[in-house]
Amino acid sequence: MTSDGHDLRHHGDAEVRGAAPGLVDLAVNVRSGTPPEWLKARLAASLDTLAAYPDGRAARAAVAAHHGLPVERVLLTAGAAEAFVLLARALRVRRPVVVHPQFTEPEAALRDAGHEVGRVLLRESEGFRLASAAVPEDADLVVIGNPTNPTSVLHPAAEIARLARPGRVLVVDEAFLDAVPGEPEALVGRTDVPGLVVLRSLTKTWGLAGLRVGYVTAAPDVIALLERAQPLWPVSAPALVAAEVCVSPLAQEEAADAAVRIAADRDHLVAGLAGLGSVSVVGGARAPFVLVRVPTQVREPLRERGFAVRRGDTFPGLGQEWVRVAVRDRETTDRFLTELGKVLAEG
Amino acid sequence: MTSDGHDLRHHGDAEVRGAAPGLVDLAVNVRSGTPPEWLKARLAASLDTLAAYPDGRAARAAVAAHHGLPVERVLLTAGAAEAFVLLARALRVRRPVVVHPQFTEPEAALRDAGHEVGRVLLRESEGFRLASAAVPEDADLVVIGNPTNPTSVLHPAAEIARLARPGRVLVVDEAFLDAVPGEPEALVGRTDVPGLVVLRSLTKTWGLAGLRVGYVTAAPDVIALLERAQPLWPVSAPALVAAEVCVSPLAQEEAADAAVRIAADRDHLVAGLAGLGSVSVVGGARAPFVLVRVPTQVREPLRERGFAVRRGDTFPGLGQEWVRVAVRDRETTDRFLTELGKVLAEG
Repeated sequence: MTSDGHDLRHHGDAEVRGAAPGLVDLAVNVRSGTPPEWLKARLAASLDTLAAYPDGRAARAAVAAHHGLPVERVLLTAGAAEAFVLLARALRVRRPVVVHPQFTEPEAALRDAGHEVGRVLLRESEGFRLASAAVPEDADLVVIGNPTNPTSVLHPAAEIARLARPGRVLVVDEAFLDAVPGEPEALVGRTDVPGLVVLRSLTKTWGLAGLRVGYVTAAPDVIALLERAQPLWPVSAPALVAAEVCVSPLAQEEAADAAVRIAADRDHLVAGLAGLGSVSVVGGARAPFVLVRVPTQVREPLRERGFAVRRGDTFPGLGQEWVRVAVRDRETTDRFLTELGKVLAEG
Repeated sequence: MTSDGHDLRHHGDAEVRGAAPGLVDLAVNVRSGTPPEWLKARLAASLDTLAAYPDGRAARAAVAAHHGLPVERVLLTAGAAEAFVLLARALRVRRPVVVHPQFTEPEAALRDAGHEVGRVLLRESEGFRLASAAVPEDADLVVIGNPTNPTSVLHPAAEIARLARPGRVLVVDEAFLDAVPGEPEALVGRTDVPGLVVLRSLTKTWGLAGLRVGYVTAAPDVIALLERAQPLWPVSAPALVAAEVCVSPLAQEEAADAAVRIAADRDHLVAGLAGLGSVSVVGGARAPFVLVRVPTQVREPLRERGFAVRRGDTFPGLGQEWVRVAVRDRETTDRFLTELGKVLAEG
């Protein structure tokens, strides 16, 4: 808990742990039906190699090639969570700032590493957009998510890049960007933005939350610092296989198809929520989840009706009137909307 | 490289990377023929759960129960390597000391975390035994391996426990102890030794080097500090499954059988080495490897003859006249001894 009462270490998985078997999980942002069978088969094959220590070179080369970067600009990590800890511990920064509301782990990792963390709060009245955000000029580390969890807002790449400064590290968490068709506004692969650090995850699109794999791109000197702070053999052999095959052209085609489907499913969810009247959805949603303002407590009654949604009040800048809802197939969404309608009618 | 020229980040896996396919690996200390089929099947089954974030509670409870400890005294880690980084970063120590020669990763992790690291060198003339080792009285962190890699010496638990002091953390790396029949001299599970921290690995006995899983036992306040320094979801779901099933009674029975077989195979290796005349083996070997003093450079010629052994000169306290040799089955050992004999005859 921080002094203002936000539990930064609360995550969606806590909302579905120990849940009744029938509970529909709209709290965790992992694409359903994943990992796909072909990927599971590749991972299963990798189990024959477990007696050897992991060798990350092939995965690193594959990820670098995918983004058109030299390998010195890429570091594989045990999920984005490890990357946040490495950034917090390895970089010499005095004034880190996190743009909220967003995924709370970067701030938690910075605090755990002993930093005082400044917050820039984007406002509901401005659609949680970055445009006029007042990032302090002396901030030497700025963390922002794109698209942002939990608001689902996709910031223009140019607006983010404008936050770059000499002597400032600009961390952009693009963990959900591969779920946006065409990956617009991506900064990964850019080498012309000073201090840029981009985080990517395989967790959400590929259903690999349990495997712990992601990667960081940055200037070679930053990558070297982060790598030095990693334990020996930081990423498991199956996770390295996953990274390598998930950037392959065929996998990327599958991810692109999924992104288009998610966008259509999200439109359906957003239209349905609008039809309920008394809730409002943060506009311009582009991620595989939406942030919803509700007029009454809906989380517990929804859970009783078989649907878990993510509480919003653990995100700095949000209160109990917010919930985050994952995008699922139309049929699941329709059942959810029906139950939410009933809850709202009772409230 | 440290100032005295030891490459603390050199590990056995580097000696077999990119090797010719026929090369027999006596450099890496992982039991051959592992992981066993039943374990691979359990890991393969866990791939169906990868979309969920890892939940370490069952594995932690299983490991704790195996050692008769409460869960607050156990922490699962992404291999012993992560544990060394956590110890180096999370504990407030001023004067860490590592008892050498031993696995170099603890010292490397301490240095990377900004510590000056003292060394206590055990002597060949004393059989690399701990008895009269002069650990400085003001050392507030002492790291020792038991049995020690690379000397294979198993120190009496009582001698190690005598190093405990109020205000001192005593780290005992028991990564190879489950390969010693009956696990004599184990300190894991002891709660009467102040400041005791024990590390364990599943890597060697179960052939899971690629999976990254191990654990630490310590007093609850130390565990809490280490846990706080971990990234979120530090251990992958398959690794957690491995930890849980590898402490099961059936698995432990298999490990105990393997330990007995290894001891017999080691006797065969040691006898064969003694028969060569011009080499000497550090006495009292109890681990699945032995440390050998050779009269001439044997590593390169052995590699040309198809056998990779671990160089000794990256271990503080040892020089180029030492190599570490893994214990393998008799047939492999006999072939190795034949080739080593030829190399020595030529030298």
